[in-house]
Amino acid sequence: MEPIKIGIIGFGTVGAGTFEVLATNRDIIRDRVGAYVVVEKIADLDIKTDRGVHVDHKVLTVNALEVIEDPEIKIVVELMGGVTKAKEYVIRAMEMGKHVVTANKALLAEHGHEIYTAAQLHGVSLSFEASVGGGIPIIGALKSGLSANRIKLLMGILNGTSNYILTRMTKDGLSYDHVVEEAVELGIAEDPPTLDVDGTDAAHKLAILMSLLSGVPLDYGRIYKEGIDKLTPDDIRFADEFGYRIKLLAIAKVLDDGLEMRVHPAMIPKDYILANVDEAFNAIYVEGDFVGPNLYYGLGAGRKPTGSAVVSDIMTLARHISVGEKPFMPPLGHVHCRPNGVNIQPIDKLTSAYYFRVPAVDRPGVLSKIAGILGEHQISISSVIQKGREVNGTVPVVMLTHEAKESSVRRAVSLIDDLDMVTDKTVMIRVERLKM
Amino acid sequence: MEPIKIGIIGFGTVGAGTFEVLATNRDIIRDRVGAYVVVEKIADLDIKTDRGVHVDHKVLTVNALEVIEDPEIKIVVELMGGVTKAKEYVIRAMEMGKHVVTANKALLAEHGHEIYTAAQLHGVSLSFEASVGGGIPIIGALKSGLSANRIKLLMGILNGTSNYILTRMTKDGLSYDHVVEEAVELGIAEDPPTLDVDGTDAAHKLAILMSLLSGVPLDYGRIYKEGIDKLTPDDIRFADEFGYRIKLLAIAKVLDDGLEMRVHPAMIPKDYILANVDEAFNAIYVEGDFVGPNLYYGLGAGRKPTGSAVVSDIMTLARHISVGEKPFMPPLGHVHCRPNGVNIQPIDKLTSAYYFRVPAVDRPGVLSKIAGILGEHQISISSVIQKGREVNGTVPVVMLTHEAKESSVRRAVSLIDDLDMVTDKTVMIRVERLKM
Repeated sequence: MEPIKIGIIGFGTVGAGTFEVLATNRDIIRDRVGAYVVVEKIADLDIKTDRGVHVDHKVLTVNALEVIEDPEIKIVVELMGGVTKAKEYVIRAMEMGKHVVTANKALLAEHGHEIYTAAQLHGVSLSFEASVGGGIPIIGALKSGLSANRIKLLMGILNGTSNYILTRMTKDGLSYDHVVEEAVELGIAEDPPTLDVDGTDAAHKLAILMSLLSGVPLDYGRIYKEGIDKLTPDDIRFADEFGYRIKLLAIAKVLDDGLEMRVHPAMIPKDYILANVDEAFNAIYVEGDFVGPNLYYGLGAGRKPTGSAVVSDIMTLARHISVGEKPFMPPLGHVHCRPNGVNIQPIDKLTSAYYFRVPAVDRPGVLSKIAGILGEHQISISSVIQKGREVNGTVPVVMLTHEAKESSVRRAVSLIDDLDMVTDKTVMIRVERLKM
Repeated sequence: MEPIKIGIIGFGTVGAGTFEVLATNRDIIRDRVGAYVVVEKIADLDIKTDRGVHVDHKVLTVNALEVIEDPEIKIVVELMGGVTKAKEYVIRAMEMGKHVVTANKALLAEHGHEIYTAAQLHGVSLSFEASVGGGIPIIGALKSGLSANRIKLLMGILNGTSNYILTRMTKDGLSYDHVVEEAVELGIAEDPPTLDVDGTDAAHKLAILMSLLSGVPLDYGRIYKEGIDKLTPDDIRFADEFGYRIKLLAIAKVLDDGLEMRVHPAMIPKDYILANVDEAFNAIYVEGDFVGPNLYYGLGAGRKPTGSAVVSDIMTLARHISVGEKPFMPPLGHVHCRPNGVNIQPIDKLTSAYYFRVPAVDRPGVLSKIAGILGEHQISISSVIQKGREVNGTVPVVMLTHEAKESSVRRAVSLIDDLDMVTDKTVMIRVERLKM
């Protein structure tokens, strides 16, 4: 059997990881696919730096078009990151009839529609298992294993960096700034880790997953997001007292008339499996109408796990190519797409339980004032902690609410923040109490 | 697009669940596949009983051959269970050029070699996502998502009935007999639940998973197994005191010269995710050389989750058929199989940590006698509980050991049981302390 030749654009962390998987597991890949998979060309602007893998220098080029236009190359693997150039190369490769594998979540979340359309137009395959959840085969699960289901709910820890930060804050009682500084020094987080901690990366990934489920490219910009940078060790401790952990969650629920999608820190009961997903691990919880609850857990990033996912896509394509057949799975796993877009519910319409920490002066009547405002907005309190414990010179009023409307909560919080006994902005964290 | 016609043999729980998925999610299945999937015929000896789904009576037949020989039917779905007849029908369907989907783990574990060979010989596909882990797409993960990895370790809770029994024993302190009696009454367990509780069902499933990973049909009869019926609430309580939970685990490790495979109750640290998989849930932990640790969690049985898995297989086949292409994934996901069989290590060669509960009379010198025998066999104790608490009229000596050889442990235990101060057989449970 002829070897299947592939080209890689981008020889950074994931590129090197992909190369390493292909080299190390060359024989088992061949046993499973039926043909060897050979890296014919690798393009990167930097072809000097040692990536810790043995590459024949003839394979390297600084010109991405050499990869794209090589007639021997059947699969182009885009691992350069960024959006503008990556999009240009991916579309150019498709025009040349190449199948494309990518790990580029920003590209898919921001330009999915154009890229999926180009793949269909040119009759090529576009695979992106590595774009969400690192080595966790969640894309494959949604496209195949769970494909008979109407998915009603998806909740995920999709960003490893922010999960690492929250884990350290929770376990070691450290401040956000302290952990971030350390993580940057250790090379665990980027400097600054903005897209990881502000929810953008998780929103990208949620857009990709929900596009697969609905068969329509969803605009990630319409996903409500909040980051973790405002969280304090106090909130984490109070959450603990109430029996909860704080995680940066990406949440999507299927409503009768569209989707609810949001990324924000959320309090979840300690005994939920998701509450125990720590460090840089990712996990995705999915609930289908027939399969019921399903959970997928693994390393969400890193050279090796991401390389594993990229190569699994390459292998699926190579299996098709080796028997002379065209891969036929549409990018979003839907042959028929719903012609109408998907309605995404604005965050104002959300109904949720809430945690509030109101920094206030230690004076009688504070709680009654706050409770009064909440009551006027139909927000009922389920529990309160008021210990007279000083936090930053003030005594916080800390409470959990029953289910309430986000719009009412926002109005109430703004009135509370205007009280002269309230010394700083109220911290508000949504509470997820789904049965799982 | 022409509808894809399928036939179902066996209209019990899983058959009805499969039909229900196809009927309820007819439209989303069609959107994803590109064609409707239509149930053309259903064969069962009992076509009278109401299965809670609306079936046109013309579709039903008592003659399985009517399904197999119908030229319109492209996919035969075997859901009758049992081994002899099922094997005959599956092979006959393949001879007729039909693709086969089955949920029959006993069939695959006991006659895998013949069936896989027949599929290859007749150029048809054989899919069995529903045979392991119910709705959890673990077969797809091993065949595709993790296919670039050399899997080093697989540990699973693969039998929901025994996990339910252990959960009740742990949470409610009930005896094995009490929980089983209740579970049978509630219809959760079969009467008697022999194959579930003695480890046979989990061994069937482990054989299937490891066959996929090695590309060679493995004989489940060579898997060492022990059931949960000898466990007592005392052992569960002592495990808890040591910081462990007891689960029925299926474990496979890849050794330099073969496989270690075993199914038995095992003690795992309480903070492992697997220790928190309760009730009828299943979970599979897999460790690959690149992907690292991965975990899959969901309902391991039941009409709906199993139906979800069966239909996912049908949809993958239907996608191929609808574009006029032949499915080409070999049953075990390997195009090239290793010609030599796989060496399975006998249990005697195992190295593990152990828990012992030695029922003994309350007399000075008991512990020293037992410790002496263990020391002579190079088994060192890591902790001991000896509280003078009476259990069934005797005072147990309870201990954990460091890593020791199974062969030495067996010899030592047999000498301990011969001591006249020992009143009953020693209970021995293996302890898994893998980093996860």
